[in-house]
Amino acid sequence: MALPKQTDNFPGWYQEVVKQAGMAEPSLARGTMVIKPYGFAIWQRIQQAFDERIKATGHQNMYFPLFIPYRLLEKEAQHIEGFAPEVAVVTHAGGEKLEEPLVVRPTSETIIWDTYSRWVQSYRDLPLLYNQWCNVVRWELRPRLFLRTTEFLWQEGHTAHETSEEAWAEARMILLDVYRDVVERVMAVPVRPGRKSASQRFPGAEETLTMEALMRDRKALQAGTSHYLGQNFAKAYGVRFLGRDGELEFAYATSWGVSTRLVGGLIMTHGDDRGLRLPPALAPQQVVIVPIYRSDEERSRVAEAATSIGAELLVAGVRVHVDDREEQRPGFKFNEWDLKGVPLRLDLGPRDLDSGNVTVSRRDNGHKGALPLAGLAHHVPLILEEIQQNLLAQATAFLEEHTFSPEDYDEMKALLEDPGGFVVTGWCGQAECEDRVKADTKASIRYLPLEQKPAEGSCIVCGRPAAEEAAWAEAY
Amino acid sequence: MALPKQTDNFPGWYQEVVKQAGMAEPSLARGTMVIKPYGFAIWQRIQQAFDERIKATGHQNMYFPLFIPYRLLEKEAQHIEGFAPEVAVVTHAGGEKLEEPLVVRPTSETIIWDTYSRWVQSYRDLPLLYNQWCNVVRWELRPRLFLRTTEFLWQEGHTAHETSEEAWAEARMILLDVYRDVVERVMAVPVRPGRKSASQRFPGAEETLTMEALMRDRKALQAGTSHYLGQNFAKAYGVRFLGRDGELEFAYATSWGVSTRLVGGLIMTHGDDRGLRLPPALAPQQVVIVPIYRSDEERSRVAEAATSIGAELLVAGVRVHVDDREEQRPGFKFNEWDLKGVPLRLDLGPRDLDSGNVTVSRRDNGHKGALPLAGLAHHVPLILEEIQQNLLAQATAFLEEHTFSPEDYDEMKALLEDPGGFVVTGWCGQAECEDRVKADTKASIRYLPLEQKPAEGSCIVCGRPAAEEAAWAEAY
Repeated sequence: MALPKQTDNFPGWYQEVVKQAGMAEPSLARGTMVIKPYGFAIWQRIQQAFDERIKATGHQNMYFPLFIPYRLLEKEAQHIEGFAPEVAVVTHAGGEKLEEPLVVRPTSETIIWDTYSRWVQSYRDLPLLYNQWCNVVRWELRPRLFLRTTEFLWQEGHTAHETSEEAWAEARMILLDVYRDVVERVMAVPVRPGRKSASQRFPGAEETLTMEALMRDRKALQAGTSHYLGQNFAKAYGVRFLGRDGELEFAYATSWGVSTRLVGGLIMTHGDDRGLRLPPALAPQQVVIVPIYRSDEERSRVAEAATSIGAELLVAGVRVHVDDREEQRPGFKFNEWDLKGVPLRLDLGPRDLDSGNVTVSRRDNGHKGALPLAGLAHHVPLILEEIQQNLLAQATAFLEEHTFSPEDYDEMKALLEDPGGFVVTGWCGQAECEDRVKADTKASIRYLPLEQKPAEGSCIVCGRPAAEEAAWAEAY
Repeated sequence: MALPKQTDNFPGWYQEVVKQAGMAEPSLARGTMVIKPYGFAIWQRIQQAFDERIKATGHQNMYFPLFIPYRLLEKEAQHIEGFAPEVAVVTHAGGEKLEEPLVVRPTSETIIWDTYSRWVQSYRDLPLLYNQWCNVVRWELRPRLFLRTTEFLWQEGHTAHETSEEAWAEARMILLDVYRDVVERVMAVPVRPGRKSASQRFPGAEETLTMEALMRDRKALQAGTSHYLGQNFAKAYGVRFLGRDGELEFAYATSWGVSTRLVGGLIMTHGDDRGLRLPPALAPQQVVIVPIYRSDEERSRVAEAATSIGAELLVAGVRVHVDDREEQRPGFKFNEWDLKGVPLRLDLGPRDLDSGNVTVSRRDNGHKGALPLAGLAHHVPLILEEIQQNLLAQATAFLEEHTFSPEDYDEMKALLEDPGGFVVTGWCGQAECEDRVKADTKASIRYLPLEQKPAEGSCIVCGRPAAEEAAWAEAY
């Protein structure tokens, strides 16, 4: 079935791409999904890129339980207020009603900080730099594959520090050096880093840092967050240590996470009317070779060449697949690999072999050309690198073209309506003005830029002096 | 605190090793555990070794949801009978009582085969060769870290095939070529492969293949299982395909799993009175360098040499750690690394440097010796390989020394009592005799050898003609 056009029906396009490319499908329990092999292979590469950098910056993986006693969740007041409406609760197990209900973790600060209270006695026990990869559950009323699912996969880092400065440096480092690096370099998705306004903070955080990406329907997507939690969780769970000065102090905390939601962001950043476009760093198959032939004789000649080129590219470290299905015609295969977003396709027919060339099609820009068969193992990795860069360049240009600085509130509202994107304005810092924008448009503050220009100008909403800059957008 | 001796109190020894080596600790919800960074690093290496081989044999990873509607579990009669008493049930979510309770997956055959019914139409859709890594929950009344926990981590493979022969070949291949290979070569744990008797089969399986290891307290541990499920799940969930002959047929299934339980098996196979002994293939640190010095001058000289040796070994691909903690004495460090099971220790003092040697201690056999500093990067990987082999050889010798063929039932009972181990006998194949042994001893049939000798002799219990050979043992 043909995909809906992005400009006609973006949500319909997204749903069909996820389905037809074999990324995921809804499962039976409300809001849950099956991540299918093709989608999971992409997620595993994303995961691996994060895991390497998380370890390289001194963190270790561990694993905390899925189940958290309900009373533990209640100890941090803001936290329970934020998560209580979303949790799934186990009330029966082993054939009996439980004395105390268990929450299926929506995030693990509570059980981890309760445990840290037994791991930390002295400043010598700090910092704790730990991470876990796991599933979490948050009940979703309007689920959407990858973007909002009742259960999702993620990593959650939980660190404990001696000083506020150290915790702050950790929260920033994770966002800017780990998260942004993977999302931009590996996923080719450009992001804008910033702080969240108070209304959008993680429940229990003193400050939430975010990186925001822009999808091709010009809605923003929160791609990852890193929280400075101050001493809130240390106080709620009694994590105290004997400091260098001999005094008992509460530890400072950070937590940070990225999830399978990123797969949705990848699709909506790069995809086009023909389907996915995958950055080579993540593509399960970077190159597909499609043999073209009309007779049995041609077929065996082309098949032999395809196998040998495939072997050559494999040795050069390229993830290559020879599509030798006989029951499908080349045109069908072209459409299928376009849909699946394979970065580079090599079409190989008898005429190519005669001329010593192969026909090369790039998925990122649609360019077609001939490449000499000799030296293919040298050229293909260079082209893949070019595609990786070009996808980031295209998405960056799109992001910049859809970032606006309106003169007044009417222009702001008009821009948010059409074409949409990030609208950067002065803001007085008051929640009333934030609420007013929410009431007048579908937009909210996505981020407060980390590097603020010197305060000047006025709040775009109320006209009072601006306290800072804010970037507004409609968001997922 | 000193460890209990294995011979005095094996369970106490196990518990203390797990705790003191920083492997895991109990968590708040009944039977759950925190897998601590050292334990998790070992698990990740085990996991990676399985994952590579699972992929190399043509399987792809995917991810199915944690929650399964209760009604789905009920469709396969044996399956629900086996698992109903163990499941945890979510009854409330999103602040409301659910219309239908959700089971937290104890294993995923039910939801996966329900989904396969929509993925399989024709023999061309087969085989499905899929695997997932995830957490599962089975309520445990007598939990034990790693060995029996309410929540554990595992992989579960679920394959669908056109023919019974193909499914059988898959179930055998996974056990013999994938599982046994990792457990013996990477974990250095020898196993005995076999079939389970009917009473010990997986609920819903037609045949369960198992690999059984022997712990140092001479109890058996089921280290992994692979099930031939026949058409049971295809019939329960309606997985039919149009066969080559144009007839609708039910697909044939296998499922197979290994879990974090293996970490417990690793500890109990290799550990001794001083703590863990880790095979180099799994050790987070393969080599630890301990600097020895008495003066500041000696310290800086030794530290410099330690750093340079560390760098040299790192380049040679060795996971090496220089223990330069100043607040701890060498004796303390020796004990700690012994406890943590580090395969090889290099003690480096001024006298070693003068002589151009380093003192080397092997954890597998306690041997100490001097090794020339020149060529260390060449010799250390060879020694690590030797340690890997020797741990397997030691465990294999232990397994063979504790495998018995008694003449009669009295001798069998005596051997099971002391020293314990595998007792291989003729068996009539009747459940009554199996039950009788269970009543008279703590042992059960662990496996029925895959390669049966021609039936001869008699059942060790009842004296009737033996139908097959059976290996009995007390088990975890």
